Amino acid sequence: MSSRSCLSIVLAAGEGTRMKSSTPKVLHRIAGLPMLAHVLKTAEQAGAEQMAVVVGHDSDAVRKAAASFAAGAEMFVQEPRLGTAHAVLAAREAIARGFDDVLVMFSDTPLIDAGALMLARARLAEGFAVAVLGFRTDRPTGYGRLIEENDALVAIREEKDCSPAEKLITFCNSGLIAISGAHALSLLDRIGNDNAKGEFYLTDIVALANRAGLKAAAIETPFESTLGVNTLAELAEAEAVWQRRRRREAMLAGVTLVAPDTVYFSHDTEIAADAYVEPNVFFGPGVRVAGGTVIHAFSHIDGADIGPGSHVGPFARLRPGATLAEGVKVGNFCEIKKANIEAGAKVNHLAYVGDARVGAGANVGAGVITCNYDGFNKAFTDIGRGAFIGSNSALVAPVSIGEGANVAAGSVITEDVPADALAFGRARQKNLPERGRRLRERLASTKK
Amino acid sequence: MSSRSCLSIVLAAGEGTRMKSSTPKVLHRIAGLPMLAHVLKTAEQAGAEQMAVVVGHDSDAVRKAAASFAAGAEMFVQEPRLGTAHAVLAAREAIARGFDDVLVMFSDTPLIDAGALMLARARLAEGFAVAVLGFRTDRPTGYGRLIEENDALVAIREEKDCSPAEKLITFCNSGLIAISGAHALSLLDRIGNDNAKGEFYLTDIVALANRAGLKAAAIETPFESTLGVNTLAELAEAEAVWQRRRRREAMLAGVTLVAPDTVYFSHDTEIAADAYVEPNVFFGPGVRVAGGTVIHAFSHIDGADIGPGSHVGPFARLRPGATLAEGVKVGNFCEIKKANIEAGAKVNHLAYVGDARVGAGANVGAGVITCNYDGFNKAFTDIGRGAFIGSNSALVAPVSIGEGANVAAGSVITEDVPADALAFGRARQKNLPERGRRLRERLASTKK
Amino acid sequence: MSSRSCLSIVLAAGEGTRMKSSTPKVLHRIAGLPMLAHVLKTAEQAGAEQMAVVVGHDSDAVRKAAASFAAGAEMFVQEPRLGTAHAVLAAREAIARGFDDVLVMFSDTPLIDAGALMLARARLAEGFAVAVLGFRTDRPTGYGRLIEENDALVAIREEKDCSPAEKLITFCNSGLIAISGAHALSLLDRIGNDNAKGEFYLTDIVALANRAGLKAAAIETPFESTLGVNTLAELAEAEAVWQRRRRREAMLAGVTLVAPDTVYFSHDTEIAADAYVEPNVFFGPGVRVAGGTVIHAFSHIDGADIGPGSHVGPFARLRPGATLAEGVKVGNFCEIKKANIEAGAKVNHLAYVGDARVGAGANVGAGVITCNYDGFNKAFTDIGRGAFIGSNSALVAPVSIGEGANVAAGSVITEDVPADALAFGRARQKNLPERGRRLRERLASTKK
Repeated sequence: MSSRSCLSIVLAAGEGTRMKSSTPKVLHRIAGLPMLAHVLKTAEQAGAEQMAVVVGHDSDAVRKAAASFAAGAEMFVQEPRLGTAHAVLAAREAIARGFDDVLVMFSDTPLIDAGALMLARARLAEGFAVAVLGFRTDRPTGYGRLIEENDALVAIREEKDCSPAEKLITFCNSGLIAISGAHALSLLDRIGNDNAKGEFYLTDIVALANRAGLKAAAIETPFESTLGVNTLAELAEAEAVWQRRRRREAMLAGVTLVAPDTVYFSHDTEIAADAYVEPNVFFGPGVRVAGGTVIHAFSHIDGADIGPGSHVGPFARLRPGATLAEGVKVGNFCEIKKANIEAGAKVNHLAYVGDARVGAGANVGAGVITCNYDGFNKAFTDIGRGAFIGSNSALVAPVSIGEGANVAAGSVITEDVPADALAFGRARQKNLPERGRRLRERLASTKK
Repeated sequence: MSSRSCLSIVLAAGEGTRMKSSTPKVLHRIAGLPMLAHVLKTAEQAGAEQMAVVVGHDSDAVRKAAASFAAGAEMFVQEPRLGTAHAVLAAREAIARGFDDVLVMFSDTPLIDAGALMLARARLAEGFAVAVLGFRTDRPTGYGRLIEENDALVAIREEKDCSPAEKLITFCNSGLIAISGAHALSLLDRIGNDNAKGEFYLTDIVALANRAGLKAAAIETPFESTLGVNTLAELAEAEAVWQRRRRREAMLAGVTLVAPDTVYFSHDTEIAADAYVEPNVFFGPGVRVAGGTVIHAFSHIDGADIGPGSHVGPFARLRPGATLAEGVKVGNFCEIKKANIEAGAKVNHLAYVGDARVGAGANVGAGVITCNYDGFNKAFTDIGRGAFIGSNSALVAPVSIGEGANVAAGSVITEDVPADALAFGRARQKNLPERGRRLRERLASTKK
Repeated sequence: MSSRSCLSIVLAAGEGTRMKSSTPKVLHRIAGLPMLAHVLKTAEQAGAEQMAVVVGHDSDAVRKAAASFAAGAEMFVQEPRLGTAHAVLAAREAIARGFDDVLVMFSDTPLIDAGALMLARARLAEGFAVAVLGFRTDRPTGYGRLIEENDALVAIREEKDCSPAEKLITFCNSGLIAISGAHALSLLDRIGNDNAKGEFYLTDIVALANRAGLKAAAIETPFESTLGVNTLAELAEAEAVWQRRRRREAMLAGVTLVAPDTVYFSHDTEIAADAYVEPNVFFGPGVRVAGGTVIHAFSHIDGADIGPGSHVGPFARLRPGATLAEGVKVGNFCEIKKANIEAGAKVNHLAYVGDARVGAGANVGAGVITCNYDGFNKAFTDIGRGAFIGSNSALVAPVSIGEGANVAAGSVITEDVPADALAFGRARQKNLPERGRRLRERLASTKK
């Protein structure tokens, strides 16, 4: 198969008005990645070396996105929009360059898997001119049926054109079609628009191929892979399918998910065997989790790298650039951003650590804040190995706390602390006898 | 229809012992609103201008609640409790006043929709004396069957009285009945109690109407709308149905819910198209969310107003009176209560802002606390436009920070800060060389 | 039945390679308790007074765990592993001691209920030699079928040995078997390994008993009770079943769960009627919740005791040793560890209270930290009845705040505060006019 060249034509010109959203439909995300990117990625996995994205007019955002997801993707404008075959032919110039295989994909069918596309390409390699991805369903009403004879596909029949016998067929058209490049243009050009809506339907290609003495094949793929997204409710369904698959994959690879339905992965989450994840954990993009880690409930993790044997949460927030080495603990109500937390260090309670290094074995106390922002710039806090930062301290960056240094609780630290020093930055306590009672009595008398 | 007068009789006398709860059954909440209030609201939407609530004895809490949900509702006591028809007749005085339509509703059937009730009323307007709401189910066992002949309803037959053929009927009685006011009393008075339990069953009204030469009709409504709540498990089911509907409605209106099953709306949540909601968000009562907002995961929002383009969470808590203007950011582990956060202001990390104004563009640092409570009264903190409140500061209210003022990190602010001033309220730092090491060694030697 | 002695043989020698985990399979947890412990607990509930745990070689962790879960459990090693009957016979020595009943259980079938086992034992008491737990399923393919004749069980037939008629049987073997002690060894010893894999299958015991003129019986148990765990995905399924049951049980006992699917109980959670639980609450082991409490959303509660009328959360973390008396409030982003919070005390915002007592009616302000750890030891903070701890204070333990004392906001408290005293530990504020503006201008000019 690798010897056959392949063009993927990704249709992305739909207006998506049913999304009721100002974001273009195909840029809505599944697992943190726009649907269009999912489809381009799948095309690449299926071996397509050239992408042709067919967009509508007024589609700058989509073009830009497509270019960023697939370097070298060509854009074609479909205007006006006269049906799927018409959309495919918007990329005529690319097709004409003579690829062996042409994959027609839909940017709002984001869950299609590369394996099915590769099976379709294998059919083309065997000599079929067209290969259609289909699915089986107990409720076929409304779908186009795949009409097979002698193991070959002879037509895709719309519901309304089906005979009573054909209506009983449960093998339906997903829309995704692979076409032999050698025949693609001649077949596509034969598709007419002599129908109620006056549109050019790509599905006609199967019957036309048969009429031309060519053969078509159908490949079965799971129903859920072919889910099309036209509303935000369907987007949520597709997200749910994606998550369900990913969770199962993780569990079968040795990740414990106490409550899989409540763990959200991103498209690129890497999580190793022997990780243990409590309920309600959200992984944003760019996360790596090593084995032996425990992610406690209610953690929100984004762009972070979690080393082996680390414990995170509950109620932890790791933001981009948070790097936890081995055996690190980040506890409840802690936020870590752009910071290296070195081996065995602890940030356990109500702390904010941003733009910082926390040296190996250091202990950052409850309520400690790295004051990294002055309203304009960010500055760095360096905490040395084995340092002890007392609770409720504020470290005003740029500042460095030396190895083994100790910052007294409640201190405001504005100057560097040498290694092994003890730093104070707090006022002396004064007790005023009886004044608490008197204050209480006065306040009580004013109570509204 | 609007020309016909309508009385809604809401039965709320059941004891609800299976709820195993000290709260009266009908005051248990769905989407934050008591079931009784849901039913009264639906009655109003269906056009009822008078509510008659039938309560049991010893029902002060229910009476009070009913009066607060529907001004002008009349209360009637059913005592003893001798069946549904007997309960309806507790409101005889109201019925006798001569409404065109009488709707019999159950306060523990909270999901019934106004549309179905209006269809029932339309049947009455067409000349039917009785209209019954029914549902279809594949498992009718145990339900009363709706026996139809020639498109009219001739009886409601209890399971035990059904012939084998009738047992196959899948159209069942929901209990909700609309009665023509002209015939209501005479029909209700004819209902007897010659049955095993000696109770007066409202369902007999259909056969009696037919016997009297009047006609009855059945209206189909979805099964889930007719869900009755007798246990807290059924309450949770009803809540789930309500939430599912509301989530779908939101998505179809342009709200992105990444994981709809994990977003909880209240009965009155207003959320605009182009809002984006991550998993695990809880909306308490009284929330409005504008378009272009992002609500990150693990946010708990109650009585708050969130302006366009604002970002909330993850792990944000907005409490009643939190008002976020345009482009505001409230970040992780932040609590906002009774405070106006003006345009573009930021409260991003571990802060408590209560009884306050945060001026436009101001930045409230990590760990900042407005000390608004002295144990007896609440006091106000005013933060001017463009002010910068350094991390870990405490603002002891009443206090005002002027426009463009800067509060140094770790300060305790007890007096007003003029505009553009820099305020310090912290001790000077002292470093004691080698003392950190000595302390460490001493503590280590005492380690238990 | 209590007069019959009972041995439970728990098979725990499986390697569990499909778990893809470094933790032994049977130590993976459901509701916080290892599967093996669930099974041993169920055996005990079913009346077994002696446990025999059959382990593989190299199973130190499993032995140790078994001994801790069931004092007096005997360990037997199966090596090599030649089938289920062979595994049971590893405990020959225990069987030979002559118990009336022998229960064969599987440590990876953790949801089996004691009631079904007791029914099986009742059959033995009636004279049956063998009693097998079975389940009914619409999809029996792959399971061994229970072949019954005249209300007795004549064989367990593997799928591949079934006649077409037998394949239609939907009553299937769960694997769990009770054997009359009087016949156990003679029957077990008759089991051969003349089959494809050369293994000794326990299921053969039914046919052998019948051949020996003894009788066998089948007991029906719900499918979900017989769920076997071979992968982490199946572990999650078993967890889900367990949680679903427990949630339902709680609701039917008067606990309101707004969103039951999002509340996670531990094996030992005690929660009283009239508790009210919002969505997304996680109970770790060792929790007791009294009636009249409200647990708000996003709370993580572990080893804590919550008194009547208390309010917890949202976003509260209660850790082991947190004891809340009556009417206590612990609010958002608060962590309580090993602390007695006495009646009516409040810890409402962003506070850490560890190794402490908070006296009745005391108020711990926002952002307060008990500094209980010096890097080596933990120390105690004692807050007296009615004390008021101002926001953002740090209490450096060991320290005691007297009854009715008042700690000013932002103080660092290192010495005891007498009753009714007012304690300050903060610097005086200084305002530098115009310096805020100048600083802003300077910083702005450096903005990167």
